[in-house]
Amino acid sequence: MTHRYLNLTPLSRALAVMRQKFPPPGGAESVPLQLAVGRVTAEPIYAVYSVPMVDIAKFDGYAVRSGETLGAQDQRPLTLTNYSRINTGEVLPPAFDAVIMVEDTWEENGRVWIRKSAARGQNIRRAGEDIRAGELVLPKGHQIRPFDIGAVATYGINSVMVRAVRVGIIPTGSDLVPPGTLPRPGQTVETNSLMADAYLSGMGATCRRYGVVPDEPHRIREAVAEAVAENDLVLLSAGTSTGSRDFSREAVAELGEILFHGIAMRPGKPVLLADLDGKPVFGMPGYPVSAQTVLREVVANLLVWWGLAPPPVAETDARLASRLASDLGFDEFVPVSVGRVNGTCWATPHPRGGGIQMAVVRANGYLHVPAWREGIEAGEVVRVSLTAPSATVARTVVCVGKRDPAIAELGNRLQDSGYLLHCCNASTMGAVLALRANTCHAASIVLPDTESAWNDQVFRYLPGVNLLRLPLARTELGIASTGELDPERLALLRVANRPKSQAAQVLLDAWLEKEGIGYPHQDQDLAAGAKVWVCAGAEAREAGLSFIPIGYESCNLVIRGEVASEEGIAALICTARSQEFRAYLRTIGREPAGGPGDEPLPARDAAPARNQ
Amino acid sequence: MTHRYLNLTPLSRALAVMRQKFPPPGGAESVPLQLAVGRVTAEPIYAVYSVPMVDIAKFDGYAVRSGETLGAQDQRPLTLTNYSRINTGEVLPPAFDAVIMVEDTWEENGRVWIRKSAARGQNIRRAGEDIRAGELVLPKGHQIRPFDIGAVATYGINSVMVRAVRVGIIPTGSDLVPPGTLPRPGQTVETNSLMADAYLSGMGATCRRYGVVPDEPHRIREAVAEAVAENDLVLLSAGTSTGSRDFSREAVAELGEILFHGIAMRPGKPVLLADLDGKPVFGMPGYPVSAQTVLREVVANLLVWWGLAPPPVAETDARLASRLASDLGFDEFVPVSVGRVNGTCWATPHPRGGGIQMAVVRANGYLHVPAWREGIEAGEVVRVSLTAPSATVARTVVCVGKRDPAIAELGNRLQDSGYLLHCCNASTMGAVLALRANTCHAASIVLPDTESAWNDQVFRYLPGVNLLRLPLARTELGIASTGELDPERLALLRVANRPKSQAAQVLLDAWLEKEGIGYPHQDQDLAAGAKVWVCAGAEAREAGLSFIPIGYESCNLVIRGEVASEEGIAALICTARSQEFRAYLRTIGREPAGGPGDEPLPARDAAPARNQ
Repeated sequence: MTHRYLNLTPLSRALAVMRQKFPPPGGAESVPLQLAVGRVTAEPIYAVYSVPMVDIAKFDGYAVRSGETLGAQDQRPLTLTNYSRINTGEVLPPAFDAVIMVEDTWEENGRVWIRKSAARGQNIRRAGEDIRAGELVLPKGHQIRPFDIGAVATYGINSVMVRAVRVGIIPTGSDLVPPGTLPRPGQTVETNSLMADAYLSGMGATCRRYGVVPDEPHRIREAVAEAVAENDLVLLSAGTSTGSRDFSREAVAELGEILFHGIAMRPGKPVLLADLDGKPVFGMPGYPVSAQTVLREVVANLLVWWGLAPPPVAETDARLASRLASDLGFDEFVPVSVGRVNGTCWATPHPRGGGIQMAVVRANGYLHVPAWREGIEAGEVVRVSLTAPSATVARTVVCVGKRDPAIAELGNRLQDSGYLLHCCNASTMGAVLALRANTCHAASIVLPDTESAWNDQVFRYLPGVNLLRLPLARTELGIASTGELDPERLALLRVANRPKSQAAQVLLDAWLEKEGIGYPHQDQDLAAGAKVWVCAGAEAREAGLSFIPIGYESCNLVIRGEVASEEGIAALICTARSQEFRAYLRTIGREPAGGPGDEPLPARDAAPARNQ
Repeated sequence: MTHRYLNLTPLSRALAVMRQKFPPPGGAESVPLQLAVGRVTAEPIYAVYSVPMVDIAKFDGYAVRSGETLGAQDQRPLTLTNYSRINTGEVLPPAFDAVIMVEDTWEENGRVWIRKSAARGQNIRRAGEDIRAGELVLPKGHQIRPFDIGAVATYGINSVMVRAVRVGIIPTGSDLVPPGTLPRPGQTVETNSLMADAYLSGMGATCRRYGVVPDEPHRIREAVAEAVAENDLVLLSAGTSTGSRDFSREAVAELGEILFHGIAMRPGKPVLLADLDGKPVFGMPGYPVSAQTVLREVVANLLVWWGLAPPPVAETDARLASRLASDLGFDEFVPVSVGRVNGTCWATPHPRGGGIQMAVVRANGYLHVPAWREGIEAGEVVRVSLTAPSATVARTVVCVGKRDPAIAELGNRLQDSGYLLHCCNASTMGAVLALRANTCHAASIVLPDTESAWNDQVFRYLPGVNLLRLPLARTELGIASTGELDPERLALLRVANRPKSQAAQVLLDAWLEKEGIGYPHQDQDLAAGAKVWVCAGAEAREAGLSFIPIGYESCNLVIRGEVASEEGIAALICTARSQEFRAYLRTIGREPAGGPGDEPLPARDAAPARNQ
């Protein structure tokens, strides 16, 4: 069965409906103090007794009667007559009314001398100075911090009533396999329930993950009914789209009232909310980034309404590094990496899409394009919600361009210097434009190792810019074959669905043209199969394949000369040039590049002509 | 034995020595993914397989050969011939090269129609689009976020190697009793180890709390030796001061080298660091706020140096509401409450002192007065580290003045409206000055319920200011006695060590004067004992004591008229006037105030003369 969305509900309207329909259920549980960090108090906490209980000494020294110390002076020291040695925290004996610190005394001839009289009450901690019995320690609705734990325990409390929300999470889908299983093609590891559990538990919810339910409407219905009975809120993971195997809507519609299906939000559009016996049941999309958005923008919003603490999110202002398109009427959430380049904070967008989970992993924040905006222009100041500590923004090195294992590994090693390398995927042109606009620290550029490629694709767009080119690794590319290479079969050469790089394509095209071999028709290859393909020489040799070299591609970092001496960039360059990094590249079958190219490139004042 | 501190070490120097002496020990452990949130990766994580593994459909629809859809137009729809119904996530059969979304088709006469040709590759998720096998997922040194969990699981990883630091915590002190025990006067509940555990566990350290060790040097020595053998770092809680029962220094000095004892820092001065077999042993002060400062500024600093993640701390700029004194050469840390008053962020200091744990509980941040400063002037912009989510600053209502159970309860109830009432302790004069400088939302003022008291202590300092006085509760005060009240004994009247309020003192003085009873000499009362004292009428009557009323004190909120309509203040006023709140006051023996006083006070243009 195929069905369409109901009308898409605007995000703000969806949240209003949700909050109006589901007032806080008011659940609470008692937890021992050690487990209470991050939880929210369900009721006020009052001190069981006063602290201190009675007057005690504030410092180590001597308890005295202040009246008897009158007249002590620098020039006329006095010996103590009635006194008692007292330690910090000890009860002041009733006969005394002041404490003299041991540092302000000395012993001589078995007597204790002072040079200054004591004021009544000095160096005494009064009973109740910290708190009095019955006084409020924490109000209700307070999120407990680590240091609160010590205070609450000090005031005589060992367990606290905290707000509790029981969340049931039901994964559905016949294609799902449990974490730890190697999926077959077309299968998906069921990880959304794990992620929802991690995220909502962090807010103090008590999550229960149910077993995977296959795509059968009656089994989904049974599972939902069971979970609704046992929880305050239920998440049904996936099956909320409009495909022939999407039964979530059907299943919950039979059990309760659907409040909305489809929010005008991206990612996360296929979300569903139903009211089952007064309890909310969310149908969540299956794409992980869509699911994250629904968890963060919708489900967490309800839990905050119910009194749980929102996950801490720091915010920062940044300029948008490249234009973001967005549909009017849709709230969009875009993962970005924020870094400070030349004194300006820039937010560089990562690829969007519900399935590109790595974009969120690589990002250190996200921005919200509100429904009333049709995109945001490059350079505009935007508010970014950070997903990393805000202190790390200053230590973030933003690299725009091609993803490459050599650069990923460079980032991995850069962490040792305290800097975080963020790689934002972009075409060569995107990387060159980022360099030109000075919105990134480095560009990652993978090109055939020829001067013309660099002239055509890089330098002509950056006239007059002082550039440092840092070749990281070169890869010999060529045509590999499972059998002897036969010119007849080369004519049927199929470029794999995803060639390793654009450079491979360029090199192949050049080689085919040079050899006079016609390029196969785009459909022809489908029938011929992929027994001949372009790959790295190391790979072909390791597999014992025939191999015809066609050239080198090289992976480079390109940096503007003026930022090369900044601390993070300098660390990046040092790491890239280190023997350890070059040795590592060899272990992954990459040839470290370097030598003459590894020099500042001369500034170029004019773009060289193409095909010169 | 009494000893003095070694020379105090400046904080910056102490941290440098510490880092130089103790390089990262590099410990790591494998944890299941569900327990990995907040931990820091000890090694990079690479994808086990590509995601997607093969080309799959991005949407529900029809897999087609793009070449066969050429020519489809709005005006000239086409029927599909070769196609396969496909759902989101399903493997694209090898014969097809594009997917048409179900929304872009319709069925008629058993055939599927389209209006637009398909481009090769459209609506297909390419193999490796999210990540390719062997690609870096997380670098080493990355703090794992909740949404990373889903990604890591998706890419085939079930457990991760994370950095691990074993911390042993040894509480020492013969006066300590375990949490859950009612302490006798002079005993202290051992809560610092609980707090250290909560704080350092939050950074990902593995804490082990040892049993309380009494103040006996050889037993402390044994405990330290055991803990050093079992951990990477040891905290010895208390006994680091210079009193006759402070054996921590002596104990560790016999086992290793003392690197410093005493840091020029407040609170937290009596901290000690020793090197035992290359492992750091910290001697921590016993005062809870001192211990917190050492944990946060010193111990956590070492753990960050060792690669753990710092606790997330948001920062904000604020103006200092009142002058802070500070000694040159000392790094001082002061708890503050930050709130936005009339558009300006103000940071109001709480009382300092290692023992005033409630100051930290009440605060939402702290500020650092660096060693090179001698205090900070009121009005200066300071950087505040927040201990509450930064979003709560805008919802913080700052009240300066007398602590009073009625106001604490008001704060407790205000949380329901989403606002947080922060009470910063100050004298009546301090509260009046805060009102005058407009640095607080409300002042909490407890005064005898007489016009002259208000004129003398409040209005004369606020000429021309439009004030709203909100009486919360009044208390009848009087002289109670365990026996019949006897004028002879009244002459020996002893005011309890801590009179309930300054108002009680004022009322008592006035009554004694009126009755012609001489005020007892300050020392005379010590001998006489406290059989006659000032207390609330309700208290005396409940205990069946003789009682002579001397007057009323009332607890009031005073608010500048111009802020009274701000949302948080309006909520505060509504809560204070609510029937529920007034009913609550009666349950705690307070008489709700109200009526004629509960009106905006007229603006006053001149200070009334004293004693008028």
